[in-house]
Amino acid sequence: MARDSYVIGVDYGTDSVRSVVVNARTGEELGAHVHPYARWKRGLYCDPSRNAFRQHPLDYIEGLIASVRGALEEAGEEVASQVKGLAVDTTGSTPVAVDRQGTPLALKDEFADNPNAMFVLWKDHTAVKEAADINRTARTWGGDDYTRYSGGVYSSEWFFAKILHILRKDAAVRDAAWSWVEHCDWMPALLTGKTDPLTLKRSRCAAGHKAMWHESWEGLPPEAFLTVVDPLLGGLRDRLYRHTFTSDVKVGNLTAEWAAKLGLTTDVAVAVGAFDAHMGAVGVEIKPYTLSKVMGTSTCDMLIAPCAHIGDKLIGGICGQVDGSIVPGMLGMEAGQSAFGDLFAWFGALLGFGLDLVEGGEAARDRILPALNAAAEKIPIGESGIVAIDWMNGRRTPYANQELRGAIMGLTLGSDAPRIYRALVEATAFGSRRIVDRFREEGIEIERVIVLGGIPKKSPFIVQVCADILNMPIDVARSEQACALGAAMFAATAAGIYDKVEDAQPAMGAGAEMQYRPIPENVRAYETLYQHYLALGAFVEEHHEGGSRSS
Amino acid sequence: MARDSYVIGVDYGTDSVRSVVVNARTGEELGAHVHPYARWKRGLYCDPSRNAFRQHPLDYIEGLIASVRGALEEAGEEVASQVKGLAVDTTGSTPVAVDRQGTPLALKDEFADNPNAMFVLWKDHTAVKEAADINRTARTWGGDDYTRYSGGVYSSEWFFAKILHILRKDAAVRDAAWSWVEHCDWMPALLTGKTDPLTLKRSRCAAGHKAMWHESWEGLPPEAFLTVVDPLLGGLRDRLYRHTFTSDVKVGNLTAEWAAKLGLTTDVAVAVGAFDAHMGAVGVEIKPYTLSKVMGTSTCDMLIAPCAHIGDKLIGGICGQVDGSIVPGMLGMEAGQSAFGDLFAWFGALLGFGLDLVEGGEAARDRILPALNAAAEKIPIGESGIVAIDWMNGRRTPYANQELRGAIMGLTLGSDAPRIYRALVEATAFGSRRIVDRFREEGIEIERVIVLGGIPKKSPFIVQVCADILNMPIDVARSEQACALGAAMFAATAAGIYDKVEDAQPAMGAGAEMQYRPIPENVRAYETLYQHYLALGAFVEEHHEGGSRSS
Repeated sequence: MARDSYVIGVDYGTDSVRSVVVNARTGEELGAHVHPYARWKRGLYCDPSRNAFRQHPLDYIEGLIASVRGALEEAGEEVASQVKGLAVDTTGSTPVAVDRQGTPLALKDEFADNPNAMFVLWKDHTAVKEAADINRTARTWGGDDYTRYSGGVYSSEWFFAKILHILRKDAAVRDAAWSWVEHCDWMPALLTGKTDPLTLKRSRCAAGHKAMWHESWEGLPPEAFLTVVDPLLGGLRDRLYRHTFTSDVKVGNLTAEWAAKLGLTTDVAVAVGAFDAHMGAVGVEIKPYTLSKVMGTSTCDMLIAPCAHIGDKLIGGICGQVDGSIVPGMLGMEAGQSAFGDLFAWFGALLGFGLDLVEGGEAARDRILPALNAAAEKIPIGESGIVAIDWMNGRRTPYANQELRGAIMGLTLGSDAPRIYRALVEATAFGSRRIVDRFREEGIEIERVIVLGGIPKKSPFIVQVCADILNMPIDVARSEQACALGAAMFAATAAGIYDKVEDAQPAMGAGAEMQYRPIPENVRAYETLYQHYLALGAFVEEHHEGGSRSS
Repeated sequence: MARDSYVIGVDYGTDSVRSVVVNARTGEELGAHVHPYARWKRGLYCDPSRNAFRQHPLDYIEGLIASVRGALEEAGEEVASQVKGLAVDTTGSTPVAVDRQGTPLALKDEFADNPNAMFVLWKDHTAVKEAADINRTARTWGGDDYTRYSGGVYSSEWFFAKILHILRKDAAVRDAAWSWVEHCDWMPALLTGKTDPLTLKRSRCAAGHKAMWHESWEGLPPEAFLTVVDPLLGGLRDRLYRHTFTSDVKVGNLTAEWAAKLGLTTDVAVAVGAFDAHMGAVGVEIKPYTLSKVMGTSTCDMLIAPCAHIGDKLIGGICGQVDGSIVPGMLGMEAGQSAFGDLFAWFGALLGFGLDLVEGGEAARDRILPALNAAAEKIPIGESGIVAIDWMNGRRTPYANQELRGAIMGLTLGSDAPRIYRALVEATAFGSRRIVDRFREEGIEIERVIVLGGIPKKSPFIVQVCADILNMPIDVARSEQACALGAAMFAATAAGIYDKVEDAQPAMGAGAEMQYRPIPENVRAYETLYQHYLALGAFVEEHHEGGSRSS
């Protein structure tokens, strides 16, 4: 390359969007900017008590402009004209109802304040009943089980459950919704002016993991199945899509309008979008049989293997096995935990109850979790006798069930906050172990774990507990912006700077920063606690089912 | 009576001692004073993480002098010379090792700082293993089961378990301990100068409920049994007691030395002591088939019935059935919950974690529980889905097991502090219901519930939840000092002012202040939650036993 080229990775998280400007040859980061969603920050359109979480498309549009412009400003003015590619990752499944032109309904005046016309965020759990209907139908309708490449359980966090929930609940949206689009698909469509729902390029990752898309049944589940789930889904399949694309594929170039808005040129190639954890796995240089674990509000656990190794084997209880969902040509397998950082944040907020009662107490809120971490680390393993189950936001893997709930046992009057916190940390690591065990039970070895996200940097304690409980070394990714970096790698590939993303990885990758090794005596000590975790988990699950049956 | 006579009730609680000066004819309270234990307040001699709680005899002596003098001062100077009787109630089982003269070892220089030479407070749970040894021996040794009038389970909170624990752990105390005395027996002995362990008057209440004393086997369990439990108990029985006394009996008069210390005369008759909850039941005018429930740090649930009604029936799982332990001539039955106020205090302290991190935060600590109460009351029954088990301090009734622990299930990221607190309140009421159910399963009807102690006055919400869950009206005692008032009734009886305590009750009693009635729709709503409580409790119990077997 005579002159350096640059690419932009845009990472839409739960609370904010981050853009990074990266040298396409070296991976060097020249500028980065984070923009919090303005409406979301004010709590608009959400109801946490019902687990209803919606995001307004204007939050995404304003965040894109502000974060890209902010990152370019930091990178310096000579860079903008040399940006050749841009890729977007988002949370998911985060779908929205769109009209015939592919415009999200909430961008139209009559729906501007209707949460059902907005993006239904990944962690929205309002569609529990609809997920149950899909699962029941899949088992009983007499035809194929279309959940079989999705781990055998369809989740309330996913595409069709969310669509059906809104179709049932909101007649106005139902009448106006011509089709539905994932957040990760809508952004590239918008930037390239190719928003027609029938032709806009859909992400293989989103389609395969969240919408039961599979080549063997020629795309989405057939009309016959969907209408047995609910006649309200009738006709929708034909207004969705047949083909899907991996993120090394270019959707198009920036439109002149968007180039102007972002301060870029129309030479910028825009890649097919994907989910954040999938692009993050690429950003940390995922290799076959490496488990890439994004530790954020929840965890997303990504594994790749050559398709030929897995063959026709179905991996039960995970969130899907999709050809090309992470790295094109490899089988991408997704798993995860519904609450991770959110769980610690919940407990921290609980302990902040007293702070509401004291003048200036608010200021101490941010000090609670660091204080808990410091105190919990000093408590010997098993000393407290407390065992927790980490399903406070439902369970994603194994066998997704968003209705399950958390539990804590072994409490005494001596159970103080650091001891309970420690049990919660251990619970998340036990949850992680159940995921690893699920893969191993299917004969899929995991050779290495690499973690990314903000929490590993903030709490070495949490990573060490995880290493001890998994009995595996854990590498921590150097970049805290691995998702955005992965997006930048796809941007460079879609722009033609690399032939395939595997070439971009070593050139642009940041790799691991440090390794946590399991401590043998800890490994042994946790074994007993893990048995208690499994026993309590089994009780919670059986009791929940008993409770459901009787209600 | 030409001139009014007065009596003093002294109520030794967990944290402080309260004395009240009462008109023996009318029950009118003329003076009251509370004195917190100085050493206890500083946390001396205790280790909450091991549930080890010891109290120094000097705390009791200093507290007696300060509280009696304080109460007399409030009553006015003409009263002191007309005080005719004094009775003491204490927590229990709270035994201490004494020398040949009946002096607690901790009052001797060489044991002044040794917790094992001090009173072992009721809630000390260090003797869990010793209680298990007693229970196992009772079932397997081939002779009588001496726990059969104690509900069939001997508790780690009780006399012989605590003695054996210290005999095993502390050779110096073992060698120096000639006998052992309950706190409620030591105080009257001290005041009357009759401390010889062989002749000091022992309380029927303490002996029958906590030391397996029963007339049918001529007092304490035989030497043959005790030495099978552990040879270390050999010879002790002969240095304890054969006979026991009810609290209408006079031990003797105040010694001149003690009369001077207290500002009283040697005309004061001192009654046989008893436990706080038993005298409290008398103070609230307990009648046959009334359940008197002291709601304090723990609960003590007292029931009386004519001995002839119960006959030879053994009531399993309670803390004893003892002729005369509450009202002389009536069968006194004791049950209780190991944590009540302590449970709420534990949760409040947990929520105060953040306050340690902010300047001046300490001041808000006392506002946490009132704020929780106010918020919890507004939450609809069953709305949160949270169910808790109230065994954070073990379980007293049914079937005492101090090794059991608390649990909470149904937690979500929306489970805030008031919702968890509400579940804890409900858990204590469910625990209360299990006690009522235990009596009913044995065919013993409970016709009325009367509650006393500080909590019912502070939280109407807690009493209403209890009324709804028991599906029974609950009367709240007018006096917050019912235990001291009951002691005053016994003081008046022992002084000869009344023939029997049943005569003192209507004359001096304060009766009930108000009644909480169950709300039918609440009663129905709690029924489902109670089933969840039973299921989680069964899991905790089974899992605990499984865990014990494997460890």
